[in-house]
Amino acid sequence: MKALAIDLGGTHANCAIVEDRSVLRSQVVSTDGSGSLALTLPLLKQTLSDLVTDEGLRFDDFTGIVIGFCGLVDGTRGRVLSTNAKYEDAPRVDLQAWADEQLNLPLWLENDARMALLGEWYAGAAQGSDDVVMITLGTGIGGAAMINGHLLTGKHFQAGCLGGHFSVRIDGERCTCGAIGCAESEAAGWSLPRVWRNWPEFAASSGAQSELNFESLFRHAAAGDAVASAVRDYCFKVWAATAVALIHAYDPELLIFGGGVIHSGKSIVNFVQDYVSRHAWTPWGEVQVRSAVLGNNAALLGAVPLIAKSERSNLNVR
Amino acid sequence: MKALAIDLGGTHANCAIVEDRSVLRSQVVSTDGSGSLALTLPLLKQTLSDLVTDEGLRFDDFTGIVIGFCGLVDGTRGRVLSTNAKYEDAPRVDLQAWADEQLNLPLWLENDARMALLGEWYAGAAQGSDDVVMITLGTGIGGAAMINGHLLTGKHFQAGCLGGHFSVRIDGERCTCGAIGCAESEAAGWSLPRVWRNWPEFAASSGAQSELNFESLFRHAAAGDAVASAVRDYCFKVWAATAVALIHAYDPELLIFGGGVIHSGKSIVNFVQDYVSRHAWTPWGEVQVRSAVLGNNAALLGAVPLIAKSERSNLNVR
Repeated sequence: MKALAIDLGGTHANCAIVEDRSVLRSQVVSTDGSGSLALTLPLLKQTLSDLVTDEGLRFDDFTGIVIGFCGLVDGTRGRVLSTNAKYEDAPRVDLQAWADEQLNLPLWLENDARMALLGEWYAGAAQGSDDVVMITLGTGIGGAAMINGHLLTGKHFQAGCLGGHFSVRIDGERCTCGAIGCAESEAAGWSLPRVWRNWPEFAASSGAQSELNFESLFRHAAAGDAVASAVRDYCFKVWAATAVALIHAYDPELLIFGGGVIHSGKSIVNFVQDYVSRHAWTPWGEVQVRSAVLGNNAALLGAVPLIAKSERSNLNVR
Repeated sequence: MKALAIDLGGTHANCAIVEDRSVLRSQVVSTDGSGSLALTLPLLKQTLSDLVTDEGLRFDDFTGIVIGFCGLVDGTRGRVLSTNAKYEDAPRVDLQAWADEQLNLPLWLENDARMALLGEWYAGAAQGSDDVVMITLGTGIGGAAMINGHLLTGKHFQAGCLGGHFSVRIDGERCTCGAIGCAESEAAGWSLPRVWRNWPEFAASSGAQSELNFESLFRHAAAGDAVASAVRDYCFKVWAATAVALIHAYDPELLIFGGGVIHSGKSIVNFVQDYVSRHAWTPWGEVQVRSAVLGNNAALLGAVPLIAKSERSNLNVR
């Protein structure tokens, strides 16, 4: 099956032609998530059109188009529900009509984290496992859960996506989500500067002169900075405790870590695997912890299985 | 539909005749959970037989027998998987064969917490809601989750049951489950004595002379004991943060609190409702928090819907 796929984030869109487990051709374009989705659609159409032409194909060579969107999505009705300050007009944009009129193709829409899990399940680190949790470490902590081969969605399409928003520190800081001491407000890209800066002895440490991000944290820790080492160890523990909570919540056999952070800290997966072995309650055996392998292609490669699953279950409204 | 139902706990079994949303007749018998399930079965059969006779019925007047069991259960195959130090022979007991030979009835088996949720859904506080999380506060913290009318089970039948085992205190004590700082190891019947005794100023407080259980905690707090008040408030916060985590995990519209503890602390539900309103991330609206209403009948009243659901989905192996 050939499909068009777009992984639509707040600052860029990764547009692609996919065929089964391969990305045939792709193009990343900058977008302005603080602006309008409706005004972004012509750029997306032009990018797809160029890709299709360059590949020597036409729109009607494709089964459909799939968009992985950076917000809450009602996949059964193909609508964006909530965008958390990105593309605020998205809930009012009729993407199905756009795809129908502009591309003459049916459109499927899903949350980008669920798409990434589906991609890893179909073509990456989760092949062969139908019970999988994915955690994506980046500016925030995202994720998705698959149970018995089905993406968990829940009544309001939030289930499985909020694993970064379980409280791991009941007396911690308030998270942007409203909850207290979430993993995301203790150990994610946006919260790291606060946590690091507030660590005892920070001012006298070597890290105090650097940018406060995970790349510099891991670098200073590796160079022997005691404060950076302690903050790194704390972040590892937050991620590991979150992994255990997600295992207890969704009962998977496999846990996948994705996101930019895992590339700057090679031992994350090993640390979490060891912590899970010691602290998760799984009398049936042991959950395997792995790195995602598809990188920026993960959500794109979720396109074909998303279409295939919806055709089998008639979930798509068309 | 008439069914026989047994809610089988570690220290007693609640045996009953149920018809649709009513318990027609029931009898609690003491059992020895530290002993053998196989050796307990004759007592269960005798108790059921007496109930049936007293009600003027015969075994073949019933659609089947349902057992809610205090451990991990494979409901699709009708087998106990893991018992956590209760009825250690249970995984080797063929309950289907017992019911077939002794009662000439088909048998369904499910985890007792899932049965309680199903009972509340069918006949209690969760009627009309298909997306529900139940938290049971007692010696431990149990629970279950229903999504779109289906009990969540997961690959190894653990999903939904371990909501008391998300870490809320990443630097806390090790829980009996192996994880660190679980809600259950911070604010449940078995852990309360440790938490209370270790609270600052405990030795000089009025509670120091009493039994350390929730009933006495709430009593001393109500009488103005500052330590008891602080510990009570801490427990409330643990339960409320757990409620938020479960909402983020399973995306319900309704959260039910059950278990003995809620009767000794009337304001638990109000406190959690207020905390959820302020701290849960639910852009679609607000999760309702309620007390369970069926008490010890909850698991029994799950019997009829369990049979009905399995007959519809052919999950039962018979």
